[in-house]
Amino acid sequence: PTGSHKPNTAVAQAYYNAVEGITKLTTETGAGQWGASLAMACALVGITCEVWQVRASYDAKPYRRYQMEAYGSVCHPSPSDLTEAGRAMLEKDPDTTGSLGMAISEAVEVAAKDPNAHYSLGSVLNHVMLHQSVIGQEVLAQLKEFGEEQADVVFGCAGGGSNLGGLSFPLIGQNLREGTTTRVVACEPAAAPSLTRGEYRYDFGDVAGLTPLIKMHTLGHDFVPSPIHAGGLRYHGMSPMVSHAVNLGLMGAVAVEQDDTFAAGLEFARAEGIVPAPESTHAIAAALDYVRTEAKDGEVVVIGVSGNGVLDLPAYENYL
Amino acid sequence: PTGSHKPNTAVAQAYYNAVEGITKLTTETGAGQWGASLAMACALVGITCEVWQVRASYDAKPYRRYQMEAYGSVCHPSPSDLTEAGRAMLEKDPDTTGSLGMAISEAVEVAAKDPNAHYSLGSVLNHVMLHQSVIGQEVLAQLKEFGEEQADVVFGCAGGGSNLGGLSFPLIGQNLREGTTTRVVACEPAAAPSLTRGEYRYDFGDVAGLTPLIKMHTLGHDFVPSPIHAGGLRYHGMSPMVSHAVNLGLMGAVAVEQDDTFAAGLEFARAEGIVPAPESTHAIAAALDYVRTEAKDGEVVVIGVSGNGVLDLPAYENYL
Repeated sequence: PTGSHKPNTAVAQAYYNAVEGITKLTTETGAGQWGASLAMACALVGITCEVWQVRASYDAKPYRRYQMEAYGSVCHPSPSDLTEAGRAMLEKDPDTTGSLGMAISEAVEVAAKDPNAHYSLGSVLNHVMLHQSVIGQEVLAQLKEFGEEQADVVFGCAGGGSNLGGLSFPLIGQNLREGTTTRVVACEPAAAPSLTRGEYRYDFGDVAGLTPLIKMHTLGHDFVPSPIHAGGLRYHGMSPMVSHAVNLGLMGAVAVEQDDTFAAGLEFARAEGIVPAPESTHAIAAALDYVRTEAKDGEVVVIGVSGNGVLDLPAYENYL
Repeated sequence: PTGSHKPNTAVAQAYYNAVEGITKLTTETGAGQWGASLAMACALVGITCEVWQVRASYDAKPYRRYQMEAYGSVCHPSPSDLTEAGRAMLEKDPDTTGSLGMAISEAVEVAAKDPNAHYSLGSVLNHVMLHQSVIGQEVLAQLKEFGEEQADVVFGCAGGGSNLGGLSFPLIGQNLREGTTTRVVACEPAAAPSLTRGEYRYDFGDVAGLTPLIKMHTLGHDFVPSPIHAGGLRYHGMSPMVSHAVNLGLMGAVAVEQDDTFAAGLEFARAEGIVPAPESTHAIAAALDYVRTEAKDGEVVVIGVSGNGVLDLPAYENYL
């Protein structure tokens, strides 16, 4: 209902927090798909939700805030003057367009000070990867339905890693257990290339250093992506489990340029009917390039479409 | 993929026109769901699509135009200076906010002058009702899946009548053939009440009088609904088949006030996760009222949610 894969983990997180007696969740959001999904999940289980949205997206995508408010949540631009972390960031750079790392610091701070509140993260962490593995399980079921023994190549976009991990881990598991040879390609934006350009080391998950240290591919926790980048996929780090899989050689990675992604998105929309989210178009662009240059006849290529682009239509309009 | 029931008939119409050698479809659109659906369908079958959108919606809902353009279609505000009908309307009232009847006149005129073009209508007519009957067939299948013998009361919103007819005709057919007692309630806006306030007589489908005469409930083909009305459901007439069914007593009708619809829409969104289209909230509001005042325990109430409200979030924001 919110147009992306995020409810897979949002509903689970809201439900288990509600069962535990928690009455409020805080979180950050970039493009807004995660914030909207957690807002919906909290409405469904009857708890409140407070979201810090990266200012660049907050200003450019008002419909996402309207969506969160329709579900009864509150949404602030980040950095905000509502937290110590936010005030410190604004003092350092009053015109900052924000980053996911900054918004995480704010949401974590508010949750840490309220015994009835928890902080909820929509990507990166192991429990999120677990919830999202339903995607890959569905891919396996769909392949079976179409009489295919395996996928040959799988393309998924990679920001924090949640849809990519969810899509690919069940297929990698099949490779390891049954000897299939599915190849997984992580498709990340050239503007925030944590897997292809980042270092594999311990780093904080947020700007202020409030989270535990996490071993991951990272561009540094003070990385601020260009505000013109249209989609999500703006996080400085990559899920530890995805990072580990790349390090073990279980999946590869490519960086995709933004203009190629919109061209691919329009081609996909006109062929399949679905206007894809700008994030998903990274996977589509890489898959189209592969099919046109390298693929052999009869290969089975899977593309993970992590969300629709209905609320990102102005970005397409700018491209057209 | 476009977020409403409209592709059910858009894909069929585009396909059969393409098979017949037609290379372009013209149409009108109000809230934009039909224009976006026909744009998508034309992209899928590889023909061009030109849409006249009622000016009030064109100005208030730019995302709908972006959506049509993403699918490769062209969208004009109506009345436009591109047609004789449009120029005549603008001369009479340069500041008109437009109406579906005016937009139909423009789209029909352009198609009539081009041997390779046809005009396509997304509601009202019998073939559209036929395509949409898949909705009611799915309701019957879903009821069976849940072990229910019949629906007791069915609420559907009514503009031109397409989703309502599609939803209810298979159930009315079951009533007539098998003696079930499903009651159907057409829910129309108080701002354009063709069933509850209109006359049952022959009238034109458009403002300029270019269409054949149609026997239907009508507010008069020069009716212009208030531009502040947020959703679709702005047509002056009602599908001849729905009109006939109401006239035979096979279904009833109620008019719903706009403020009640938004309150009902938010309640539905927070309970079900889906932000409904403003059109659909007419059915939801009437159903909630029925369940709270009249329904007996154990009654099976069906609500037709004809579309989602993702591109109508500003209207919700104005209400909040």
